[in-house]
Amino acid sequence: MKIARFSHGETISFGILDEEEDELVVLKGDPLFAGYEPTGERVALADAEFLAPVIPRSKIVAVGRNYREHATEFGNDVPAEPLIFLKPNTSVIGPNVDIVLPPQSQQVEHEGELAVVIGAIAKNVKEEDALDVVYGYTIANDVTARDLQHRDGQWSRAKGFDTFCPLGPVIDTDIDLEGGTIETSVNGEVRQHGRLSDMVFSIPAIIAYASAVFTLLPGDVILTGTPAGVGPLVSGDRVDVTVSGLGTLSNPVR
Amino acid sequence: MKIARFSHGETISFGILDEEEDELVVLKGDPLFAGYEPTGERVALADAEFLAPVIPRSKIVAVGRNYREHATEFGNDVPAEPLIFLKPNTSVIGPNVDIVLPPQSQQVEHEGELAVVIGAIAKNVKEEDALDVVYGYTIANDVTARDLQHRDGQWSRAKGFDTFCPLGPVIDTDIDLEGGTIETSVNGEVRQHGRLSDMVFSIPAIIAYASAVFTLLPGDVILTGTPAGVGPLVSGDRVDVTVSGLGTLSNPVR
Repeated sequence: MKIARFSHGETISFGILDEEEDELVVLKGDPLFAGYEPTGERVALADAEFLAPVIPRSKIVAVGRNYREHATEFGNDVPAEPLIFLKPNTSVIGPNVDIVLPPQSQQVEHEGELAVVIGAIAKNVKEEDALDVVYGYTIANDVTARDLQHRDGQWSRAKGFDTFCPLGPVIDTDIDLEGGTIETSVNGEVRQHGRLSDMVFSIPAIIAYASAVFTLLPGDVILTGTPAGVGPLVSGDRVDVTVSGLGTLSNPVR
Repeated sequence: MKIARFSHGETISFGILDEEEDELVVLKGDPLFAGYEPTGERVALADAEFLAPVIPRSKIVAVGRNYREHATEFGNDVPAEPLIFLKPNTSVIGPNVDIVLPPQSQQVEHEGELAVVIGAIAKNVKEEDALDVVYGYTIANDVTARDLQHRDGQWSRAKGFDTFCPLGPVIDTDIDLEGGTIETSVNGEVRQHGRLSDMVFSIPAIIAYASAVFTLLPGDVILTGTPAGVGPLVSGDRVDVTVSGLGTLSNPVR
């Protein structure tokens, strides 16, 4: 099932994507908390503006250097344990919303990533049970001010600016990621391409690791790392992140 | 005015501390959002259990190395700009709740800090206007797994464990911090002592800097750094952080 959060007219709703009819089946509440009760209304895709499908109330946990070739493109070793950091929920934007280049940085870069949306309160989850706490998957762009990342040492500022975490367009609750790929393009030109199977730490391993530190809450989002090929964004660019089966998260840059 | 969040019987309320009567004036809602309308009820301090006075819905922004002698006690330079990092809201606990030592670390340390509670939506606030977006002040303990901090490089795990951000006991909305001191004791023995005026970056400077990165939201908390003298906590310890005028935040360790 593909879940969207969208505006139509003055209203913001959650809905289930009906890809045959190009419509959204409107739901009474946020299905992450309220289940899947339809209101009876349907909205044509043409009349809906997709928003970030989730706004985390607690955490965006991200994993650095989780694709071997990306870890080594900056001369770093592949880490022995997941390297985790946090992005604030104020950095989240939806599809088609501008990524705003901040004046503090001269080098803002794209990092297309698969994102995991947590569906249950989770602490000390075992790797073999980890997929039970996953609500679904979406796409993220872990936008990064590369110059500030290197200068600060800590990554919270470089990765935490407003608009630096595009999410969407939908959450797929039952996608099969086996054999999946992730691709990031700028102005139609492919910059990053990876296989999801190339992650150094698997999704269950990341969930187990993170939940041994933090209690994960429903709506928390985990970014699973980016493949090699990160590169700069400039004003006027459009950056597209595509994950097989999940669609494309597209954002202009200004 | 001193604001507390507290449980009494089965109920959790916000209230204004009446220090003459040793009572709490119960409020209808969270005064950060709902103002100061009393319910008419009063609760004796003896019947109230103080909780964390705020649970941030977005961010805990913390500043590293913001007291000169603490920066240099690990051989670091005093930073040219505030060094900011994030702690998750799941790390927050209230007074008298156990700080739980995680099995991943052999060296958990106290860092007593003054905390600023943000009261307004704030982006790109100028230093001279920064105090306008402050709701009040409380006390924090930026508990840190020192070994993991050094091993990971990124501080999110080392400072993000559940229970690693005690806050409280109250928020003071109109305290004068001029000449104030901050002191951290373990089992009654003073370990850290500093003057608030010794901060490298002032509170308005930190707010201006952080709000140029993130939109600050009401209920966000800023930890303003710790003085020299950080040291280990072991099971059975009790750690007290005292800020003049704000009282003492006391937590056992297990």
